[in-house]
Amino acid sequence: MPMKAFKLVRWGEPGQYVDVPKPKPGPGDVLIRMKAAGLCRSDLDMVDSKPGSAPYANSLDPGYILGHENAGFVEETGDAVTDLRVGEAVVVHHMRHCGNCEYCTDGAEQHCEAFKRNAIGMTRGCGMDGGLAEFLLVPRTEVISIGDGDPILYAPLTDAGVTAYHAVQTVIQRLKPGTSAAIIGIGGLGTYAVQFVKLLSSARIFAVDNIEARLQTAKEVGADEAVLFTGDGTSAVEQIISKTGGRGVDAIVDLVGTADTLRLSAKISRPRGRIVLVGMQGGTLEVGWGLLATSCEFAISLGSTRQDLKEVCELARTGKLRIDIEKFSFDELGKAYNALRAGTLVGRAVVVFP
Amino acid sequence: MPMKAFKLVRWGEPGQYVDVPKPKPGPGDVLIRMKAAGLCRSDLDMVDSKPGSAPYANSLDPGYILGHENAGFVEETGDAVTDLRVGEAVVVHHMRHCGNCEYCTDGAEQHCEAFKRNAIGMTRGCGMDGGLAEFLLVPRTEVISIGDGDPILYAPLTDAGVTAYHAVQTVIQRLKPGTSAAIIGIGGLGTYAVQFVKLLSSARIFAVDNIEARLQTAKEVGADEAVLFTGDGTSAVEQIISKTGGRGVDAIVDLVGTADTLRLSAKISRPRGRIVLVGMQGGTLEVGWGLLATSCEFAISLGSTRQDLKEVCELARTGKLRIDIEKFSFDELGKAYNALRAGTLVGRAVVVFP
Amino acid sequence: MPMKAFKLVRWGEPGQYVDVPKPKPGPGDVLIRMKAAGLCRSDLDMVDSKPGSAPYANSLDPGYILGHENAGFVEETGDAVTDLRVGEAVVVHHMRHCGNCEYCTDGAEQHCEAFKRNAIGMTRGCGMDGGLAEFLLVPRTEVISIGDGDPILYAPLTDAGVTAYHAVQTVIQRLKPGTSAAIIGIGGLGTYAVQFVKLLSSARIFAVDNIEARLQTAKEVGADEAVLFTGDGTSAVEQIISKTGGRGVDAIVDLVGTADTLRLSAKISRPRGRIVLVGMQGGTLEVGWGLLATSCEFAISLGSTRQDLKEVCELARTGKLRIDIEKFSFDELGKAYNALRAGTLVGRAVVVFP
Amino acid sequence: MPMKAFKLVRWGEPGQYVDVPKPKPGPGDVLIRMKAAGLCRSDLDMVDSKPGSAPYANSLDPGYILGHENAGFVEETGDAVTDLRVGEAVVVHHMRHCGNCEYCTDGAEQHCEAFKRNAIGMTRGCGMDGGLAEFLLVPRTEVISIGDGDPILYAPLTDAGVTAYHAVQTVIQRLKPGTSAAIIGIGGLGTYAVQFVKLLSSARIFAVDNIEARLQTAKEVGADEAVLFTGDGTSAVEQIISKTGGRGVDAIVDLVGTADTLRLSAKISRPRGRIVLVGMQGGTLEVGWGLLATSCEFAISLGSTRQDLKEVCELARTGKLRIDIEKFSFDELGKAYNALRAGTLVGRAVVVFP
Repeated sequence: MPMKAFKLVRWGEPGQYVDVPKPKPGPGDVLIRMKAAGLCRSDLDMVDSKPGSAPYANSLDPGYILGHENAGFVEETGDAVTDLRVGEAVVVHHMRHCGNCEYCTDGAEQHCEAFKRNAIGMTRGCGMDGGLAEFLLVPRTEVISIGDGDPILYAPLTDAGVTAYHAVQTVIQRLKPGTSAAIIGIGGLGTYAVQFVKLLSSARIFAVDNIEARLQTAKEVGADEAVLFTGDGTSAVEQIISKTGGRGVDAIVDLVGTADTLRLSAKISRPRGRIVLVGMQGGTLEVGWGLLATSCEFAISLGSTRQDLKEVCELARTGKLRIDIEKFSFDELGKAYNALRAGTLVGRAVVVFP
Repeated sequence: MPMKAFKLVRWGEPGQYVDVPKPKPGPGDVLIRMKAAGLCRSDLDMVDSKPGSAPYANSLDPGYILGHENAGFVEETGDAVTDLRVGEAVVVHHMRHCGNCEYCTDGAEQHCEAFKRNAIGMTRGCGMDGGLAEFLLVPRTEVISIGDGDPILYAPLTDAGVTAYHAVQTVIQRLKPGTSAAIIGIGGLGTYAVQFVKLLSSARIFAVDNIEARLQTAKEVGADEAVLFTGDGTSAVEQIISKTGGRGVDAIVDLVGTADTLRLSAKISRPRGRIVLVGMQGGTLEVGWGLLATSCEFAISLGSTRQDLKEVCELARTGKLRIDIEKFSFDELGKAYNALRAGTLVGRAVVVFP
Repeated sequence: MPMKAFKLVRWGEPGQYVDVPKPKPGPGDVLIRMKAAGLCRSDLDMVDSKPGSAPYANSLDPGYILGHENAGFVEETGDAVTDLRVGEAVVVHHMRHCGNCEYCTDGAEQHCEAFKRNAIGMTRGCGMDGGLAEFLLVPRTEVISIGDGDPILYAPLTDAGVTAYHAVQTVIQRLKPGTSAAIIGIGGLGTYAVQFVKLLSSARIFAVDNIEARLQTAKEVGADEAVLFTGDGTSAVEQIISKTGGRGVDAIVDLVGTADTLRLSAKISRPRGRIVLVGMQGGTLEVGWGLLATSCEFAISLGSTRQDLKEVCELARTGKLRIDIEKFSFDELGKAYNALRAGTLVGRAVVVFP
Repeated sequence: MPMKAFKLVRWGEPGQYVDVPKPKPGPGDVLIRMKAAGLCRSDLDMVDSKPGSAPYANSLDPGYILGHENAGFVEETGDAVTDLRVGEAVVVHHMRHCGNCEYCTDGAEQHCEAFKRNAIGMTRGCGMDGGLAEFLLVPRTEVISIGDGDPILYAPLTDAGVTAYHAVQTVIQRLKPGTSAAIIGIGGLGTYAVQFVKLLSSARIFAVDNIEARLQTAKEVGADEAVLFTGDGTSAVEQIISKTGGRGVDAIVDLVGTADTLRLSAKISRPRGRIVLVGMQGGTLEVGWGLLATSCEFAISLGSTRQDLKEVCELARTGKLRIDIEKFSFDELGKAYNALRAGTLVGRAVVVFP
């Protein structure tokens, strides 16, 4: 039986609707009837990739279904899957993992050696079939039940939400009362990052962005201070240093990652602070004595774990998380990606299946 | 120059107003003009102590000024105190510490070996002069500046608030999204404990008490579930187990400490849970395989550190903390203690100095 | 094709050699040619169980193959197992886990909800087939490769070694230079516990046992002080308190678990100490203010994780771990269990397969 | 009464022996009869400083006694010092701290705001009188008792030893069995760093240096692998990557801090690794996605705490620490500094007082 899917057929060309066979779950698998799929800027990066170009077209084979923010209902379970019921609402963690390698058993499955080594893609919808299709076949291990949660709301949590959550987790224990945090880049990930810091600490939150409307959103979801990033960031540095009485900030999560935002990070960090780079705009930072505050840390945060996603879903379940989405039907992928490309969206574009 | 003070003159007798010399700060000392002093149930325990009885009258000499929740303004500083200005609003951490022993340098000054060994009292107003007087003389190390905070509000934080905070700190890192906490005893410490868990985590909070009005307060300050403790607690256990879907609770802070509340704690704790005993009602608990959930911890939480108090003051400074007090003048100590003894107070009795 | 196996056929009767079909790996499974199986006191507890008695005969069905300390070589892999080669030396972690429940994704697979709920046995060789047979069939997830390690030496690490390791891990971070640890019970687990503390810290180690020969072993593997437990333990308490200058011990791992050893633990623990109960002799301890040092913790340590076992295998690989064993052939199980029952063994009884 | 001291009298000139008054302890002070003082490369940097040059001559006033690795015996105690006996052997922690600022109460006294703000020097013998004199006056808070330890051996622990220890402490918890660590620079600090990793973990230790003799020392004190740093370090990178089977190293402590050693650090670090910069040779490193392994951290480690020094002294007390020194008399400072400058010393130069 065929199903409709949206494939990256060839590098450098828009994705296409195609008919493919409906997958059949093998032992340990789960077939999910898709209800919602979040669209991500990286989808555009993939379809825009010139043949042979890095990081996608030089290492992955085209011909896969796009979509890595997936949520829906269990349609069918393979042998040996006994703990999920047909009809159960679920989300899919977008990173692959083997469960057995030295990273997987040590609480860092996002670094799974097996998938890194096999180079078949660590992310669903990126080198292997994703969720822009009527059905999605995944190992049971990638599935997380969301109880009576609405898959449409939860879809954007499976990458945008959980990636921000993981980065915030690497600083949250230092955010004791009296400390402060800066979230740089209040886009898809940043609005979640602000909320996570707010929900899980009493730190004073600085939101930094170069777009006023986004700073407005940041304030609505809990930022204490909104700082407009203009020019090379000098004025933003001055504002933050001034508002902290010269002390600087204890934890910084940079969701943009240009040279300018990283320089800002280094200049506002206080001794014993921590700078976490998530954004992949390609910026770099020069570090050393005098360039970084003493006992300050710089770290790169990659991805997330299933446990992270469970915790994010728990926050959503309590209704404490504001999730901004703009809905499109599965037929409107062209329109949705155009809106994403144009930057006119308010909230995540979520494709809703019938 | 004399000042008026309220002393425990003899064991087993009510405290008395007496005139004593106004103290003079030596090197490293700070003289504080008292503005507010919180009254504590342990003050009554002290004055009620029969001569020779444990734990006070058998180890401490009478003749000291009562009062261990102290806040006011810097009146005068001794030599070598350069970082406090006259007139600055401050609170006093009630536990003594030497700053040099193996506990003090290791982040656990509440266990200070020097003061334990010397047995001259680890707590101000308990074996050594406290703050129920016009002036209070303390080492600079016990003083914490509160900026433009109101000493009247901060006074009860220096014991009731910070003791609850320290206990909550020993469980807060395990209170990840999706977990739950139980606060047992919603009196002076419990209302703070509920608020700290609320402000610093997203855990679901169960408040447990045997008085309905207190449970109402708990809900007002953030408890998700109010559980009435009746009889031996069996019904409370059943409610909590049922409301957690049979799983039990991840962290329990018992601010009462009777055999009944401890038994409740053991029965509602889940595997890998933690029970923290703060309350000193003298109850005990039998532990062992089958009596406590596997990988569950039981711990006794003693006191607090100056860092704890600083963090509590930071929470107060942001206005996020509800602090219930009932004011009395320094002349009304008899009336205030009577109200405390009668249990008719709503919030902490705070003596306000002119 | 049949294979020879040693089954608990009926409760209350010795195990028997029987012929059973050689298992065939399904998808995700691994068939192991057994090379070595450690024998454990709990095997005797099982065969000695009167029908209907707790904790085994009242909850498990008889008719399973015994043996939960298993090591051997990969004989055959099922579909989807791509990261193990035939002939590779492996050990089997003895605890079951689903990999998906809230404990499994949170680093505590030894508390797996799925296996606890299904009540089909959380431990191999205890309610489900173990390794006292020519071949053992397990999910790939339970298998850990040991490189060029000798399965005969590694077998006892899979329960005795790793259970001690897990318990030690729950105290190791507090064992800073200048601290001390007590290991109570220097039997199968205790000799490992002493070594783990020695290898991973600079703490002073007190070994406590009621048998002189065991204390001698403890000294050989790294204990700094050997303390003979006599009578109700009063003399042992006095020795330890005296040798620590009255301070007491920072971490205590009780691998015996009688009322006497627990009382000893409570009496030698210092403020901020931690007592970890592993031994299942059924003892209990009364805790509360005055019964336990302030800020002291009591915890029950259950089992271990695969990550624990990997780390233990790494220690073995470096040759730093002394592993005492007494070899028996697979035909000599009666003799081996008799020796185990008689307490005449030096080191773990390990059955070696041809 | 005068005493003999060795002062930096003017920037850019060698230190001089001068007669100064013997200090008198005020309240809270301790007067130490010096027994041993370690000499440090930074002493030479100070005397070599051209007037007005950074970082010393542009911010500090000359005219102070040199020497920041100090050990001796209590000569006299000021009022309020009750926990030290005359004649007791002690060491002095070389970093100043106020005990009350937000860093001091939060376990990071090496970042003390008070001393940073006052700019009177955070280090003894650097802008304020040090220990190259017959007597040294310090606040009691800077003094640590060493029991029956020999001050001559302990002197170099107070900076070289404890600075290395603090840096190692920031990585030690990740050095689980199976991990590896690289210590770069096996000079005064590096030989201690290797020993601390060895004593406190089972990690495999790579020692890296450009001098063969130092690598030999590293092996003697516990390094598993000695790697010669030649040229720009490419060959050292290749060796380490090869010896770790392509995985890289989990924790790197760079005690040199040139651009070359930092580049080496970045190239050998594995995902989730940590690079700690201690050495002040002025090198910098460019970090960002692709330049540092994912989830890898870079941090600058400043100084140490008194608790660190206590723990180092505990390790020395057990005799587990090899401390290489070359003794000079107090009259031979010229000769000692010349040897230090010439690089001909084996071990730390320690000045021994009569």
